[in-house]
Amino acid sequence: MDDLSATTSGGTLVERVMLSIRGQIANRSLTPGAKLPSIRAVAQTMKVSKSTVVEAYDRLVAEGVIRSRPGSGFYSAAPLAPLALTELAPRLDRAIDPFWVSRQSLEAKDEVLKPGCGWLPGSWMPEKETRRALRSLARAKDITALTDYGTPLGLGSLRQFLSRRMAEQGAEARPEQILLTDSGTQAIDLVCRLLIQPGDVVLVDDPCYFNFLALLRAQQANVVGVPYTPNGPDLGQFEHALIRHRPRLYITNSGLHNPTGASLSVGTAHRLLKLAEDHGLIVIEDDIFADFETEPAVRLAALDGLDRVVRIGSFSKTLSASFRCGYIAARPDWVDKLIDLRIATGFASSRLSEELVFSILGSSGYRKYLEALRSRLGRVMAATIARLQSLGFDPWVTPKAGMLVWCKLPDGLDGADMARHALNEGVVLAPGNAFSASQTASGFMRFNVAQCTNDKMFAVIEKAMRKAA
Amino acid sequence: MDDLSATTSGGTLVERVMLSIRGQIANRSLTPGAKLPSIRAVAQTMKVSKSTVVEAYDRLVAEGVIRSRPGSGFYSAAPLAPLALTELAPRLDRAIDPFWVSRQSLEAKDEVLKPGCGWLPGSWMPEKETRRALRSLARAKDITALTDYGTPLGLGSLRQFLSRRMAEQGAEARPEQILLTDSGTQAIDLVCRLLIQPGDVVLVDDPCYFNFLALLRAQQANVVGVPYTPNGPDLGQFEHALIRHRPRLYITNSGLHNPTGASLSVGTAHRLLKLAEDHGLIVIEDDIFADFETEPAVRLAALDGLDRVVRIGSFSKTLSASFRCGYIAARPDWVDKLIDLRIATGFASSRLSEELVFSILGSSGYRKYLEALRSRLGRVMAATIARLQSLGFDPWVTPKAGMLVWCKLPDGLDGADMARHALNEGVVLAPGNAFSASQTASGFMRFNVAQCTNDKMFAVIEKAMRKAA
Repeated sequence: MDDLSATTSGGTLVERVMLSIRGQIANRSLTPGAKLPSIRAVAQTMKVSKSTVVEAYDRLVAEGVIRSRPGSGFYSAAPLAPLALTELAPRLDRAIDPFWVSRQSLEAKDEVLKPGCGWLPGSWMPEKETRRALRSLARAKDITALTDYGTPLGLGSLRQFLSRRMAEQGAEARPEQILLTDSGTQAIDLVCRLLIQPGDVVLVDDPCYFNFLALLRAQQANVVGVPYTPNGPDLGQFEHALIRHRPRLYITNSGLHNPTGASLSVGTAHRLLKLAEDHGLIVIEDDIFADFETEPAVRLAALDGLDRVVRIGSFSKTLSASFRCGYIAARPDWVDKLIDLRIATGFASSRLSEELVFSILGSSGYRKYLEALRSRLGRVMAATIARLQSLGFDPWVTPKAGMLVWCKLPDGLDGADMARHALNEGVVLAPGNAFSASQTASGFMRFNVAQCTNDKMFAVIEKAMRKAA
Repeated sequence: MDDLSATTSGGTLVERVMLSIRGQIANRSLTPGAKLPSIRAVAQTMKVSKSTVVEAYDRLVAEGVIRSRPGSGFYSAAPLAPLALTELAPRLDRAIDPFWVSRQSLEAKDEVLKPGCGWLPGSWMPEKETRRALRSLARAKDITALTDYGTPLGLGSLRQFLSRRMAEQGAEARPEQILLTDSGTQAIDLVCRLLIQPGDVVLVDDPCYFNFLALLRAQQANVVGVPYTPNGPDLGQFEHALIRHRPRLYITNSGLHNPTGASLSVGTAHRLLKLAEDHGLIVIEDDIFADFETEPAVRLAALDGLDRVVRIGSFSKTLSASFRCGYIAARPDWVDKLIDLRIATGFASSRLSEELVFSILGSSGYRKYLEALRSRLGRVMAATIARLQSLGFDPWVTPKAGMLVWCKLPDGLDGADMARHALNEGVVLAPGNAFSASQTASGFMRFNVAQCTNDKMFAVIEKAMRKAA
């Protein structure tokens, strides 16, 4: 998975010498500790200048492949420890818990198919814009952009950009109300650390994004699930939970809810906020799928004006997951406390990531890419749903956009059983109970349509269905 | 501080049109909401092709400067919210607490002098290698290096590199015992979240790095300081604290201790570990200044073999603070739990940062840069100490390497008073009590010799001394 080619610099002759030495170490002509041929000898044998050999040896020393003993020469170093096999193989014995999908997806080798994961294939991402932004940053006039810590709130120009974009969506947030973070997940974690204590009750949708459950477990919160309907949470149950459990916080996605792909209705949003006000509830609105929407759904942050709603966003779904950047938009008094908390627990966000995100977000190419992506996802969504239906899966709602679809399994099938069988065949699925605080979604499964364009995957699913039946 | 020039792409004619429109908006020839001239009109006036104007308008739309109404034309958008002045001015009313130095340093404008901060000037960092690594990554064959999440442990090649480097230092850690993180601070935070509960007692050195105090406050730990001697913690007091407070954890720097610049002696290290064993104490060894050392001090991680010692490292001090990368080396069972905790609270580390760090670390240029840096720091350390002594400051020890020197102030002077006066004159100092759990270091101050090469700074210090006297 590592791209070493990306990290070797140019210089053919030097590299030829390095390759030769590495080859001799690999085939054990040079055993660990053995003395290397002299610079003059190599220069003669390989018909290169002595300075070329010096540079090659120097780089091999830097890489730790060989070592220099002043006055004595160069020696082969001990070999690199191999990466352990356990790192690379799927763990079939893991419980189907909130970590199941993420660890199986993140640990998967390249050839593993991942219809259960929550992100686009790398080849769908904005490659051209990303390479352009990297080249542009490599030429940055201000070296501190490449070497220094950023400011505590994060890159001003990116915060101004986000502030304007939010204003267009009806959610006013001044740039100083926006704190850039290392990821959407870190953003939620910081807000939870600020606002809740171990033992506090937190409401989530049932089903919800599995990592909310993992994060709240790390916070030692008591999690209460509220059944989710195609218009948002079931408000009767929501009110009941407010009265019975006195929760401090509720975490949700309003647009393109994960895992169901449903969106909050205006009426539900209004009544939900009224309940929140009546019961002193704070709401975290995780808006991570906003850029997929074709017709934006209502946002709690827009209705509420960032009073008791905290808005979270990130760029990992449509821009890049390789450089990490997310944000929190919240009340100014909370933002000031969040700055201290972030310094204490992470010191600073990545200025380089923020420069890259700003460079890409503000490009016309990115806007065109997003338009093309939405169309592409629309087509793949329709095709995948048809194919899943032919196997007996029943979409709970037909999502208006995005990549996720939540399906009821054919009667009698257990998602966890199916997922274990499929993993054995190199396919990572997302069984329903990984998303369910009440563990009542064993008959459901989440599919990522962008990762469902492969015939082998459907063959494995059919086989897993037979085995689990 | 933002380098916008780094994030605009080429194309002179397109940029000329963009500049013209931006100028008309700035001088209010085009007020918010006003209709822009037609594409044809601009093409004629500016003597450019219509496609040039289309591209310019398209980019301005992407940037949010103008907006398109299909079938109607282009309109000037609402102006960007200005960055608030409060973001940019020093906060003179802040208490001298563990956040004082970091917030004043990170929030400081470019012209502010920062002898109190804990990092090198941007111009001292390995610029050439960093630009090269960025260009190289922009050409990466494997696009997933630029777009996808990394693996849960982080880039395999970087972990192998670190594993070998640690082995050379006598501290064995297999690559799968190393977890890459977003920063050294995040690494410590994760370990604390795994190993301690609110209310647990944690030992720190007194004085210690102020952010340990901030981090442990965020963990709701009870912090107990142990007086630090030029050889490490005072072992009598250390044992007394173990018996009296039954701490779970101790956090320290063994080589080039922050803020004192002292290093742990072998004898102290051995006896300290024995006490830790006897009392079931876990030790976090934050090795962030390792690359500055000319003669490496003993490491607890090497003596202990990563049984009860957790080693933390990062690259922000000598490689870059703009892309964030740190690591944890620990027992395999702890690493497995730390992976889950990191997924729950941050999902993934930055693959791009890891690729950049690996690319730079493994280059011969970086090794040469480090050698030159150590010599440069040695010279500046001697010169700065001489100059501070002439003002009446007394170094507590003469550090063998690194950038930090801990000075006793002339009798009667209070570091906090001095720091407030200096801040008023645009100089951020690091007053002793920011580093002291027991608040007994008001007569001390930490200086960063790499940031003390400016005459104005010494003039401000002299003035602050007179005012505080």
